[in-house]
Amino acid sequence: MDMSKFPITDKTEITRLPKRGVYDKEAVFQILDEALFCTLAYVREGQPFQIPTGFVRIEDKIYIHGSVGSFYMRELRDKKQSVCVSVTLMDGLVLARSAFHHSVNYRSVVIFGEPQLVESKDELYDALEAFTEKMCRGRWNDVRKPTENEWKTTMLLSIEIKEASAKVRTGPPKDDEEDYSMDVWAGVVPLKIEHRAPIPDPDLKTGVKIPEYLVKR
Amino acid sequence: MDMSKFPITDKTEITRLPKRGVYDKEAVFQILDEALFCTLAYVREGQPFQIPTGFVRIEDKIYIHGSVGSFYMRELRDKKQSVCVSVTLMDGLVLARSAFHHSVNYRSVVIFGEPQLVESKDELYDALEAFTEKMCRGRWNDVRKPTENEWKTTMLLSIEIKEASAKVRTGPPKDDEEDYSMDVWAGVVPLKIEHRAPIPDPDLKTGVKIPEYLVKR
Repeated sequence: MDMSKFPITDKTEITRLPKRGVYDKEAVFQILDEALFCTLAYVREGQPFQIPTGFVRIEDKIYIHGSVGSFYMRELRDKKQSVCVSVTLMDGLVLARSAFHHSVNYRSVVIFGEPQLVESKDELYDALEAFTEKMCRGRWNDVRKPTENEWKTTMLLSIEIKEASAKVRTGPPKDDEEDYSMDVWAGVVPLKIEHRAPIPDPDLKTGVKIPEYLVKR
Repeated sequence: MDMSKFPITDKTEITRLPKRGVYDKEAVFQILDEALFCTLAYVREGQPFQIPTGFVRIEDKIYIHGSVGSFYMRELRDKKQSVCVSVTLMDGLVLARSAFHHSVNYRSVVIFGEPQLVESKDELYDALEAFTEKMCRGRWNDVRKPTENEWKTTMLLSIEIKEASAKVRTGPPKDDEEDYSMDVWAGVVPLKIEHRAPIPDPDLKTGVKIPEYLVKR
């Protein structure tokens, strides 16, 4: 068994356009690390629900966090059910010569796993630091660290990434052979999430300068 | 009953931070129209699954499409089950003075509804044109229209937006009163999906110029 790949299971097998399927762990982890949020789907009384939420990956687990008062966090903690987590990065609009072959370049990951309450303080601290650093590298050292009470009101759930697959499309459009002679422009419009110039809090204390890690972006 | 708002139901009520809840139809539609993809969650034998997919909204329906050979499209067509559709737009990183109050500015929508096979040819044609135009306004007039066979191999499902809610966060960080005097920069880093310069297909026919609607972006 190749340990660098996720096993292909009934749930994770890419049946539609299987050539786009990716089971390589490093490739899956890279997509997860680039994504700003995931959507988590779970079932309540037969009805699917979805929660868009921030997350962070550390080794072979992803972590989500929320308030201990959050209804869905408590539900996820208590139900011990397999959930589905997905992330999608949109890389480009693929403009073909025919309407039919229009597509998008994307990288998506789907994970199946069971949320577990994290009870270890060390794991909680590490994950919360990783959340902050994922949002903005260098930030953790700058900010006020959580108080005892803030830690207590934060619930952290981990999901071990046992079953996962990615689906990836890259490159130019694929048109029907006979359409390549058409006088229609075809190609890709790349999409990129841009970080714009930071907007200071209107209540920013006078004299506080913008940190280096924000200027360099 | 206010017809410009979605009713607040057990499924769509925002219980966590209810002040972020939005039920106004126009606000929900605007978020949907800006989103490049949605994730659709459905249940198979008690297990939630998610599909990231393109979609388009026309009036009070959203449409998804796929191949008639697609396993999940056939499943959605046949199962007559209530699914959950979500879209999320990430508008900014909210950097607070404390790690605890870090957040994101976002606009998300969650919809509950039952997929219906679209059998009307007119509705199919209109939706497919809208898909292409949503991706790139002006494109439909330029490209080769679908052949009879291409139409036949395309499955279109509609979901009437009866139950929906949005959740929105905007503005600067909210810190604890005593933290505003800290010497820590705080504010928002706006995020924006940027359309980069189009990359022509390597097999582009010689002499074909880039269309106006792509230059203007």
